[in-house]
Amino acid sequence: MVKVKDIKWKKGVRVSELVKHLSTTGFQAVELGKAVECIAKMKRENAKIYFTFTSNMVTTGLRGFFAQLIKLRMVDVAITTVGSIEEDIMKAIGEDFYIGNYSADDVGLHEKGINRVGNLLIRNESYEKFESYMLDVLRKLYEKQNRYSVTEMLKEIGLMIKDENSILYQAAKNNVPIFCPAITDGAFGFHLFMFQQDHKDFIIDVVKDFADLIFSSTHDDKKGIIALGGGVSKHHAILGTLLNGGADYAVYMTTAHEYSGSLSGATTREAKSWGKIKDAADAVTVIGDVSITFPLAMMSVLDILSDEGIINEE
Amino acid sequence: MVKVKDIKWKKGVRVSELVKHLSTTGFQAVELGKAVECIAKMKRENAKIYFTFTSNMVTTGLRGFFAQLIKLRMVDVAITTVGSIEEDIMKAIGEDFYIGNYSADDVGLHEKGINRVGNLLIRNESYEKFESYMLDVLRKLYEKQNRYSVTEMLKEIGLMIKDENSILYQAAKNNVPIFCPAITDGAFGFHLFMFQQDHKDFIIDVVKDFADLIFSSTHDDKKGIIALGGGVSKHHAILGTLLNGGADYAVYMTTAHEYSGSLSGATTREAKSWGKIKDAADAVTVIGDVSITFPLAMMSVLDILSDEGIINEE
Amino acid sequence: MVKVKDIKWKKGVRVSELVKHLSTTGFQAVELGKAVECIAKMKRENAKIYFTFTSNMVTTGLRGFFAQLIKLRMVDVAITTVGSIEEDIMKAIGEDFYIGNYSADDVGLHEKGINRVGNLLIRNESYEKFESYMLDVLRKLYEKQNRYSVTEMLKEIGLMIKDENSILYQAAKNNVPIFCPAITDGAFGFHLFMFQQDHKDFIIDVVKDFADLIFSSTHDDKKGIIALGGGVSKHHAILGTLLNGGADYAVYMTTAHEYSGSLSGATTREAKSWGKIKDAADAVTVIGDVSITFPLAMMSVLDILSDEGIINEE
Amino acid sequence: MVKVKDIKWKKGVRVSELVKHLSTTGFQAVELGKAVECIAKMKRENAKIYFTFTSNMVTTGLRGFFAQLIKLRMVDVAITTVGSIEEDIMKAIGEDFYIGNYSADDVGLHEKGINRVGNLLIRNESYEKFESYMLDVLRKLYEKQNRYSVTEMLKEIGLMIKDENSILYQAAKNNVPIFCPAITDGAFGFHLFMFQQDHKDFIIDVVKDFADLIFSSTHDDKKGIIALGGGVSKHHAILGTLLNGGADYAVYMTTAHEYSGSLSGATTREAKSWGKIKDAADAVTVIGDVSITFPLAMMSVLDILSDEGIINEE
Repeated sequence: MVKVKDIKWKKGVRVSELVKHLSTTGFQAVELGKAVECIAKMKRENAKIYFTFTSNMVTTGLRGFFAQLIKLRMVDVAITTVGSIEEDIMKAIGEDFYIGNYSADDVGLHEKGINRVGNLLIRNESYEKFESYMLDVLRKLYEKQNRYSVTEMLKEIGLMIKDENSILYQAAKNNVPIFCPAITDGAFGFHLFMFQQDHKDFIIDVVKDFADLIFSSTHDDKKGIIALGGGVSKHHAILGTLLNGGADYAVYMTTAHEYSGSLSGATTREAKSWGKIKDAADAVTVIGDVSITFPLAMMSVLDILSDEGIINEE
Repeated sequence: MVKVKDIKWKKGVRVSELVKHLSTTGFQAVELGKAVECIAKMKRENAKIYFTFTSNMVTTGLRGFFAQLIKLRMVDVAITTVGSIEEDIMKAIGEDFYIGNYSADDVGLHEKGINRVGNLLIRNESYEKFESYMLDVLRKLYEKQNRYSVTEMLKEIGLMIKDENSILYQAAKNNVPIFCPAITDGAFGFHLFMFQQDHKDFIIDVVKDFADLIFSSTHDDKKGIIALGGGVSKHHAILGTLLNGGADYAVYMTTAHEYSGSLSGATTREAKSWGKIKDAADAVTVIGDVSITFPLAMMSVLDILSDEGIINEE
Repeated sequence: MVKVKDIKWKKGVRVSELVKHLSTTGFQAVELGKAVECIAKMKRENAKIYFTFTSNMVTTGLRGFFAQLIKLRMVDVAITTVGSIEEDIMKAIGEDFYIGNYSADDVGLHEKGINRVGNLLIRNESYEKFESYMLDVLRKLYEKQNRYSVTEMLKEIGLMIKDENSILYQAAKNNVPIFCPAITDGAFGFHLFMFQQDHKDFIIDVVKDFADLIFSSTHDDKKGIIALGGGVSKHHAILGTLLNGGADYAVYMTTAHEYSGSLSGATTREAKSWGKIKDAADAVTVIGDVSITFPLAMMSVLDILSDEGIINEE
Repeated sequence: MVKVKDIKWKKGVRVSELVKHLSTTGFQAVELGKAVECIAKMKRENAKIYFTFTSNMVTTGLRGFFAQLIKLRMVDVAITTVGSIEEDIMKAIGEDFYIGNYSADDVGLHEKGINRVGNLLIRNESYEKFESYMLDVLRKLYEKQNRYSVTEMLKEIGLMIKDENSILYQAAKNNVPIFCPAITDGAFGFHLFMFQQDHKDFIIDVVKDFADLIFSSTHDDKKGIIALGGGVSKHHAILGTLLNGGADYAVYMTTAHEYSGSLSGATTREAKSWGKIKDAADAVTVIGDVSITFPLAMMSVLDILSDEGIINEE
């Protein structure tokens, strides 16, 4: 049995050292340590890595980190909800989001045209700029062809963006498909709808995406899932790997709990009953806000893999 | 100021009496009481009611209650994820789900072909029967036409089902549209994909759904949201009402918290900053598992509205 | 295997009927159903029932219900924190608490001399009246003797109170000991301290309480725990039963989760590793706010036991 | 308004750099950044710092870090529950705890004499060794005097221990009082009780502790609270500062939520209504498991204060 070890501060401690010590500290710190091991192993074993995240995370500064992970080829498939697409584009065209607080005066904010997401703020203007940009984008897309799967469309958009910190840009550049199973569930959907009003033959073919999902890996590939938060993004990654025999590795990082039976709170253990994750798979659930737990874990993984020459520091 | 009142047991107490007493008890019991008030008001004011729920709730016995609510015309629009569609159909064609427990041996379950959802169990056979059924359904749909919005398709399927307890059946019969913004995110998506392989011109037009969403109410309508759980279902209801000027009433019942900034945990208060809910709207967030909180609240609402002659007991 | 059954509204449904249906619905509703079974069994088997709750629950209207449970002899030992004692007395001497809301202006409340507990409010005046009352009480206690265990002192205080809805009163009248392992942790502690300044030989002997805890049941007794919330109250009940061989029945109702390793979130399953609960014991954990889950479960138990003639309706 | 900034990995990133970047990332990462600021300010302003933690945290490797914080004089008063005392002593006399997992076979563990705390394990033997040690300790204490306040007793015990990583040892050596408001709520209480059986005049005077709490700071002192988790420990720190005019700074790090009205989940905002925290105080609530959030925040504080020459690296 592994012993619990007392931790101590040493000046200037590095993230990867701290995380190593946390792995013998207790509770979620131990699970975080296991997550680092599991993700490092996925990459060492050349697994296809399905990476999922929710829109609120792209509102945060994790957005640039996600783009960097794609650039470093730490992930092979990205899956998210449409708010992520919208906000990634807003930032790419120069909009900024702001730090607010959870107990803000929401009616007051509304009067000022400011929208709150937890302790973050997005101005209405950012949505307006996004609208103008999208009109132009949709025209260009339509000029090229009139039927797209979601992943095809998102790749085309990524190629139009010039921002190193953009998820769409890095995904397009590095051939990482982005799945977005509920593409109409947001402002983006509204713009698609308005455009289709004048261009009846413009079709977003979601069923075609399914082929891309199936062929995103094979039964023979080792497959890993890194799911941040829950929702359809997490479910779609599970579906994608299940169709190819189930995942060999899985790390779920979430604030949801299993007690209400939601998929968002479903553990990696529950996933084994479905064959979503193989019986013998390496699987870890870390409970906590990913704005803290994910950079901590993933930067440790990158330090380790960089030492091993598996990834290259920028 | 309203006083906290001590509650007492009286033999044979009715749900609606208890809930009335709970409204001056404290904490979430008070919020539950407010939710009852708010939902009753929505109906009295003839608001268009957007009702959202997640798939795991359809795994439970709430499924029959949801169908009953549609039958009673307590809701005008239903929004959910694709697992709900799958499981409603499974039950309609005679499959049963079972009670298990949270700490089951998942690898053992997998070997027996049993899938776990929290403390509930679904057999692989139920998915197999669903598959056969769907093949037949898709053939019939295609015979009729080759391009459907999701809501159109779900209505057609509902008309084929003969089960009083089915959500799809009651929705079709009572002209309540069902939105499902991520229709491909499940076994259903796989069956659509397989069918499209042999019928290339078969199209599910998700953008067309957007029109249905926009026209599901008007700026002039009073609008209410009852969101059980979070995810794209909740977000889509917010989007649907936002497009028509924002909701006048909102009840969110969820286990998620606002601290991680997720939409699932976003409160009705936060929604006001967006104009998702009008500044002066009546809005309540109840934290807890809806398998308990929702029947408690909603059955109280039904008792009240039935007394007022607004709804008719079956 | 037990099947999941669809639930339906019927006008005027009783709490005990609803809870019975919930037990085959799913998720926490199922656990609530099990809790009802388990508590009914405790009583049928004549187990010594250890009942624990936290101070915030006594701020709510559950206070009168707790007193009623003691009066009905549904519990044999009560364990809580000192805030419960303070607030039970405040209410007994005529003070009222009020309904507020979670997002109140706390600085504004402070200026008005109002203290917030979640969505409930307590005026400073209530603390002042409590202080005057306590001065008198302590004088009377000291006249009688100068060394008390906590349970002895609380019994004496209970005998001075004349309020049917008071926990202290019903406990004293019905010989149910109240344990309060951190008696000084509140305004009560301050009053004890001030009194001791002038009466140096006045001693609260907490170690003596331990004897009372040990002798509160025997190895031969069947023993049950009903723990609402966590903290030292829950821990003390576990300790009390562990000293006598472990509990035969346990129902934990809480909002805390096991992931951070806290005792508050520790499950009945974990308790078996300690022998806190016997290996073969009947044990249930229900996640949710007890302001809703407890009256629902316990009123169902009372209806059932009343039908069986085990308890008498008032 | 402060802008959200994209974060990026750089090889070998230090904890304090990462935390600085997290403070403009979003959600709990932002609150963590504020907590670092707030704690650094407490120390710079020479505030009396009340530090609270729960027993389960001492089961983890945080125990050595807590001892180090006392040694570095980062805290002036420590408050905890009795399990912390027990486990600190066990480790000081050479016992080890072990890493297990949350879904262990608890009945199997019980048969092997192993007790589970979340994903950690404590052997029965550790409790047996603690018992022998305590018998000796109590004899020595009694030889010296027969009436102790809890803080006096814990100081005497600390002076007997020779372990640099022990909380009790460092507290005794550095004159940091340890309050433990429910001293009998554990094995320690049982040993006190057994000893008192043979030494009737041996008294633990909990009321006397109250004087120590009151005089632990003055109205003129700046006062800060760092509360990890909830329970009586957190409440006692609040009480201690409230008696002296309320805290000027407060950092709560917890997994509990405010919705059920518990003190464990009560926010720093709610505390202002009570005057527990001054209206203008600097106050932060960070939601998450402290096994991760606390070392991250506190090691950053130490790096910063060490750079400023306010504390000295060991």
